[in-house]
Amino acid sequence: MSSIQEIRRPVEAELKRFEKQFPELIRSKVFILDTITSYIVKSKGKQIRPLFVFLSAAAAGNITEASHRGAGLIELLHTATLIHDDVVDDSNYRRGFFSINALWKNKVAVLVGDYLLSRGLLLSVENNDFGLLKIVSEAVREMSEGELLQIEKARRLDITEEVYYNIIRQKTASLIAACCAVGSASAGASPEIVAEMKQFGSLAGTAFQIKDDLFDFGSEDVGKPLGIDIKEKKMTLPLIYALNESGWMEKRRIIRMVKNEADQPEKVREIVEFVRNKGGLEYASGKMQEFAAEALSRLSCIPDSPAKESLAALVDFSIRRKN
Amino acid sequence: MSSIQEIRRPVEAELKRFEKQFPELIRSKVFILDTITSYIVKSKGKQIRPLFVFLSAAAAGNITEASHRGAGLIELLHTATLIHDDVVDDSNYRRGFFSINALWKNKVAVLVGDYLLSRGLLLSVENNDFGLLKIVSEAVREMSEGELLQIEKARRLDITEEVYYNIIRQKTASLIAACCAVGSASAGASPEIVAEMKQFGSLAGTAFQIKDDLFDFGSEDVGKPLGIDIKEKKMTLPLIYALNESGWMEKRRIIRMVKNEADQPEKVREIVEFVRNKGGLEYASGKMQEFAAEALSRLSCIPDSPAKESLAALVDFSIRRKN
Repeated sequence: MSSIQEIRRPVEAELKRFEKQFPELIRSKVFILDTITSYIVKSKGKQIRPLFVFLSAAAAGNITEASHRGAGLIELLHTATLIHDDVVDDSNYRRGFFSINALWKNKVAVLVGDYLLSRGLLLSVENNDFGLLKIVSEAVREMSEGELLQIEKARRLDITEEVYYNIIRQKTASLIAACCAVGSASAGASPEIVAEMKQFGSLAGTAFQIKDDLFDFGSEDVGKPLGIDIKEKKMTLPLIYALNESGWMEKRRIIRMVKNEADQPEKVREIVEFVRNKGGLEYASGKMQEFAAEALSRLSCIPDSPAKESLAALVDFSIRRKN
Repeated sequence: MSSIQEIRRPVEAELKRFEKQFPELIRSKVFILDTITSYIVKSKGKQIRPLFVFLSAAAAGNITEASHRGAGLIELLHTATLIHDDVVDDSNYRRGFFSINALWKNKVAVLVGDYLLSRGLLLSVENNDFGLLKIVSEAVREMSEGELLQIEKARRLDITEEVYYNIIRQKTASLIAACCAVGSASAGASPEIVAEMKQFGSLAGTAFQIKDDLFDFGSEDVGKPLGIDIKEKKMTLPLIYALNESGWMEKRRIIRMVKNEADQPEKVREIVEFVRNKGGLEYASGKMQEFAAEALSRLSCIPDSPAKESLAALVDFSIRRKN
């Protein structure tokens, strides 16, 4: 498996430039905003989204100024979404830092999210990047619909595999899809290639999310706490499969446990064991690999290049990562 | 004073069409979303924003399809902002209905707000309304910055009149300004006229907000509870003026009361009395009239018409209204 450093190599200089310029995009003359946005910039993660944008641009043609603005738009949007998610989840902790929400409360979190969205919009509108804006607006719609669909379905708990794929495609994969579409469009690729690259991103993002959902059942020794999704009554693929493989009595028993007793650690452990015994992890892992393979096949629309190799390696990385 | 019915007359048919079509703009196939958005449509108020858009379009030329989409964009944005505000304020009650926030909790409120924003964006992007989108994005930035500025300043409490005007211009007036700019731009007006109409809206919106702030001190018998702003430690013009007219001892005493004792009804009453005795209401009312007059003078950029008369009457209405 390639390391992220190796994967970044074909676009390293552009990523460095982007990381340097991003703080400028969110600067404000309002003091409280500037304090918070500096803090956001400090707590940023692996920059997977700009990586997808720049690799897609390089693989489909050349990285342009529009690629940089596209990456900026998506990163602003993603940051806004994370901040809004903190309100949403009432989570007080994100990536080892206290969340914006805990520090400045919901009020400020919602407003800062809205502010960042508006900065992203202005960046695009002022530079006439309307094609990019369309791709990204569509992604915002899908993400919010996907999250709401998940909340709606969470009330029932017996969701099908099909509904699960719909939820993660909208909730998670649509943003990676937007990265790849924005990257290739900013490089001047044809609408057909942009559509294929969007599909590539959607499939890669789906595989990525299944991997994330597998962690919840301790598929490997990752040092992450188990059963967080179960506690939140999020029905993910390993559990959905295990339930489908059960008789109705057992199914009802487990669903009741998720519904009423998921706050008890020993019940969560029992559910995890149930999923493992039914082969839920192998099944989900197999599906993840199918999505990843399907993603790679979409890359045949563009000629071979170091950037294309990195895109393939990035898919491989995302399904093999340990956290 | 003209009634809203009379003011609406020159654009009545267009408003009716808009009100009929708006529910279509927010329809979703996600069940929970459709339930909530139907509820939003039912609890809608006086439609002041579409009124400003259509009157500005008619006064500056003709109402076009772009005027309808512009009004839709602003109304989607405004609805998103209201829903986000409900999270922000933790207010459980809005216009006699339980707020979305109380009914479905913060999580859903934030997501529905984001969803509505994305629908507004798509409406504009898909129809190439980039000029309108730029005006509206600028307004979103100003509104979120304005709210954050208010939160930042609320910590200190001794804000100047200048800062107060800045806050209300950004927080409230920028949306009315956007309505008038969007309306005139959608009618094909020149950039100079669009700029003047934007100024008109900004001044009218400022007068409108001062009127709102006056209600908090019971300037008339409006049947609204007094002192809500004081309880929330929002420093508004009547209070700012009264403090400026006081010696430092009295000033310190009142500021401490706002800071530490605004949860006690008798202290709120004492603050209201203090503001009244210092002439805070007359002063703020005078300033409101200055802003309104300045707004009207901007209308000289466009020729006389029934729509222009209605715009003037709308300014008059907003500073004379009883609620």
